[in-house]
Amino acid sequence: MERAAIPPISSVAVCGGTHGNELTGVYIVREMQKQKLEKVGSVSITPVLTNPKALDVGRRYTEMDLNRCFTDALLSSPITESTPYELRRAQELNAQLGPKGSAEAVDLLIDLHNTTANMGLCLIFYSIDWITLHIYKYLQNKMSSIPVRAIQVAVPASDAYSLESVGKHGFAIEVGPQPNGVLRADIFNMVKEAVELTLAWLQEFNSGHTFEGSTVEAYTLVKSVDYPRDPAGKITAAIHQDLQDNDFKLLRSGDPIFLTFSGETLKYEGEDLYPFFVNECAYYEKKIAFHLAQKKTYTFPSISVKKD
Amino acid sequence: MERAAIPPISSVAVCGGTHGNELTGVYIVREMQKQKLEKVGSVSITPVLTNPKALDVGRRYTEMDLNRCFTDALLSSPITESTPYELRRAQELNAQLGPKGSAEAVDLLIDLHNTTANMGLCLIFYSIDWITLHIYKYLQNKMSSIPVRAIQVAVPASDAYSLESVGKHGFAIEVGPQPNGVLRADIFNMVKEAVELTLAWLQEFNSGHTFEGSTVEAYTLVKSVDYPRDPAGKITAAIHQDLQDNDFKLLRSGDPIFLTFSGETLKYEGEDLYPFFVNECAYYEKKIAFHLAQKKTYTFPSISVKKD
Repeated sequence: MERAAIPPISSVAVCGGTHGNELTGVYIVREMQKQKLEKVGSVSITPVLTNPKALDVGRRYTEMDLNRCFTDALLSSPITESTPYELRRAQELNAQLGPKGSAEAVDLLIDLHNTTANMGLCLIFYSIDWITLHIYKYLQNKMSSIPVRAIQVAVPASDAYSLESVGKHGFAIEVGPQPNGVLRADIFNMVKEAVELTLAWLQEFNSGHTFEGSTVEAYTLVKSVDYPRDPAGKITAAIHQDLQDNDFKLLRSGDPIFLTFSGETLKYEGEDLYPFFVNECAYYEKKIAFHLAQKKTYTFPSISVKKD
Repeated sequence: MERAAIPPISSVAVCGGTHGNELTGVYIVREMQKQKLEKVGSVSITPVLTNPKALDVGRRYTEMDLNRCFTDALLSSPITESTPYELRRAQELNAQLGPKGSAEAVDLLIDLHNTTANMGLCLIFYSIDWITLHIYKYLQNKMSSIPVRAIQVAVPASDAYSLESVGKHGFAIEVGPQPNGVLRADIFNMVKEAVELTLAWLQEFNSGHTFEGSTVEAYTLVKSVDYPRDPAGKITAAIHQDLQDNDFKLLRSGDPIFLTFSGETLKYEGEDLYPFFVNECAYYEKKIAFHLAQKKTYTFPSISVKKD
């Protein structure tokens, strides 16, 4: 493959608190604000607490999930008296860090999340973007304390619903397991390291270093599985103990997936796939017990910065 | 020590959802209700969902912490228009399952809780009650999948603030780690087993079996430690990774307890004590990073049921 020349990454937004009860990003961003970390070498940094009202009440959101508000349709919807707080806030963030899809948008947007699932550290992104894939490979090589994986969400940019889609490049860093409303030092340190490594990579890239092409694996959603429920909609089973904490371990037909409250084991039927977001707290209301993914291999070229 | 004769335990209340986001008890109680489990041998069973409004909104409580409402003073306070929902509910529960301290109270009240701390399975109780200590010893002997410990809260009955104080005998079963709003099958199974073992013990006791005297260890609160905070009250550190998940492991002077967000390790100074409720989600607002306890040994006599 040829070597690709890509414009420098001069501006980065580091966002936290998009979900107000996912605390790692909140405290990483607050510390960056306290340290007045505005510039690292060739890169200007904007740390942003994105959903302060949700943070104040210690909940994921106050009126609607902020991280589902960044589609073109919602970002361009008119604001009225009945517009939920999070949609107003999404349009503010789009004005501050975007506008999405424009030349004015921040070069790289990193949004920091936590999950109650045992997912290690995951980059989540939309498009197969060479900057993102190179950073992903770099984090995989440099971080030894936690598995580093990636999830690609295959929806077009206009329908991309989460904050990282506002940047020219962007990804979420999703780390778990951590309970909502709890801050763990080990996870704080891992996310801090991932952010610092990303900034270090950007320095090298902007200074003219060539990063060699390679391959990475990433997971792509195939389908979601809901909990068994009674006619009133109440769940009638928990994630089976054999599936719990086994995110990204291949699920085969016949493997246990649920334990009903009366003690029956329910088994998976279907093609072999990789589960993720297993028993994520916020997904009970979204009717998702776990997602199932295929693993794909992506090849990406050598890149270096485009000279003026 | 002599053998003590104790009246039979004919009625048991099994309570869940006292904190609406601690889901193990909620689903144990709902399943007992669904199975119409009203009598097991000589024991009548009342399963109770204690805070349905908090459960509906998926929070610990709606207006005040229900499990701080069962002091004599609060249970006898007049109800007015401004009385919080949970205090009304506490008085309802006291009427249904008590009144606390009266001959009409349920013989044994078990309240099921979860914690985000790595505490295994803990019985929490107020008085050194022989029935409770015998059940504790029985669970320790029978349960192999989880450590079984006990915490004694040394306050007089009139000031006892939690639901289990309403029964003639009573204890909370506190199990973790489990995130709030999440249900884990492994923990569901452990709590179900603990409840079933307790009911099995009661059958044996009521039928005239003599349980031999023995000793047990239990932890007693010495003091609580808050997070370091800035002048605005915001926390400036997380529980150190060496203390995280190490509930009940002796903490010695010089051991790390906090990691500040700027990366500094703060160390413990003081007498050797046992930490528990380390990084419990609900205690951030109560200004408790962890509790510290002494371990004490209790000797209890052989007991058998008092014949009419």
